Amino acid sequence: MRMRRKPWAEEEIKNNPHLVVPRPHEWKGKWHQFFNNTHPIHIEIGTGKGQFITEMAKAHPQVNFIGIELQTSVLGVALRKLIAARKNNEVENCCLLRENANQLTDFFAPGEVERIYLNFSDPWPKRRHTKRRLTYRTFLDLYRKILTEKGEIHLKTDNEKFFEFSLNSFSDYGCRLKNITFDLHNSDYMGNIMTEYEEKFAAQGMKIYRCEAIMP
Amino acid sequence: MRMRRKPWAEEEIKNNPHLVVPRPHEWKGKWHQFFNNTHPIHIEIGTGKGQFITEMAKAHPQVNFIGIELQTSVLGVALRKLIAARKNNEVENCCLLRENANQLTDFFAPGEVERIYLNFSDPWPKRRHTKRRLTYRTFLDLYRKILTEKGEIHLKTDNEKFFEFSLNSFSDYGCRLKNITFDLHNSDYMGNIMTEYEEKFAAQGMKIYRCEAIMP
Repeated sequence: MRMRRKPWAEEEIKNNPHLVVPRPHEWKGKWHQFFNNTHPIHIEIGTGKGQFITEMAKAHPQVNFIGIELQTSVLGVALRKLIAARKNNEVENCCLLRENANQLTDFFAPGEVERIYLNFSDPWPKRRHTKRRLTYRTFLDLYRKILTEKGEIHLKTDNEKFFEFSLNSFSDYGCRLKNITFDLHNSDYMGNIMTEYEEKFAAQGMKIYRCEAIMP
Repeated sequence: MRMRRKPWAEEEIKNNPHLVVPRPHEWKGKWHQFFNNTHPIHIEIGTGKGQFITEMAKAHPQVNFIGIELQTSVLGVALRKLIAARKNNEVENCCLLRENANQLTDFFAPGEVERIYLNFSDPWPKRRHTKRRLTYRTFLDLYRKILTEKGEIHLKTDNEKFFEFSLNSFSDYGCRLKNITFDLHNSDYMGNIMTEYEEKFAAQGMKIYRCEAIMP
């Protein structure tokens, strides 16, 4: 995600270590302790400005949500959104990590995560960048290592080519696909929570693709 | 497929019982005898005017092809196409059936068919007609009964909604999906043989969807 630099972000992230966890590898295998409950853990890779993860956490208090975003300025915006949502002592089931998706196994133990959300991930359209796509098989290997048995990946995108690539990548990996839709906002799917991108795209009448992949 | 009635079709079909097999249930479990070889058997459900099955038979002499089409006039056109192709003693690996897809198990023994082609099947867009779609689960049940282990269904369509429905239906049935493409004619897929419909659609720049489903 491209965004103008937010000079305040670094400071605010440092001042909120309970919300943007500074050394997540120390919580590897202990996230249930972190949240002080035994609820399932869902993570979002590429959390962006944080609307999805914050609203999901509000809507599903029986689930723990962890949003992962590498870019400091973007994460700063997500942090402010989370702080605002917590004003009424709500949304205690959500935290953020300023980390890279390719190090997931440093932060999560095998079987610690029940679901992964990929929302409007960079499609990396050029063929030579295939391996950077978050549904490329090396990433699926990472996801499999941290997911529970039958753990799920829920994907949304506006990019048809990335969606097509992802369906094939999931299938070739042996995942079972579920709830495939080529037009989420005109589908039967209930309970959709929109990202900031999605709101903008949907308002323009663009189609949103969505699917769920169950790990083999 | 809608087509003006061909008054000659009935007669020509009767005169060519080696090409349009009149009592296919008598060959159930004996199609390898019919073709006088042990090559795999591929069937097309809804053969239409017959270009696909005839050209496939030409291109793959080591496979036996059976085209199934219920409508007499349409089948008559397919028959003439097949007769023309056989002029040079070629294409002895293809025959046609004037039958209904919902009676497949009357004509084929368990495991007798290695692959099923569904090309531009009627999408039956209305929800109350869902059960008529050739990828509805009751049809998948039929296909499973006649397909070999790991037998495949290869589907092409220009109808996005039918494609979306089919991907879900295959997945929900436990099929593994393969080679999903949202734009066949701009994809890497090699060796595509076009149906009459497909030629027309492709010339208009319409997208063709394609996938392969492997039976569980």
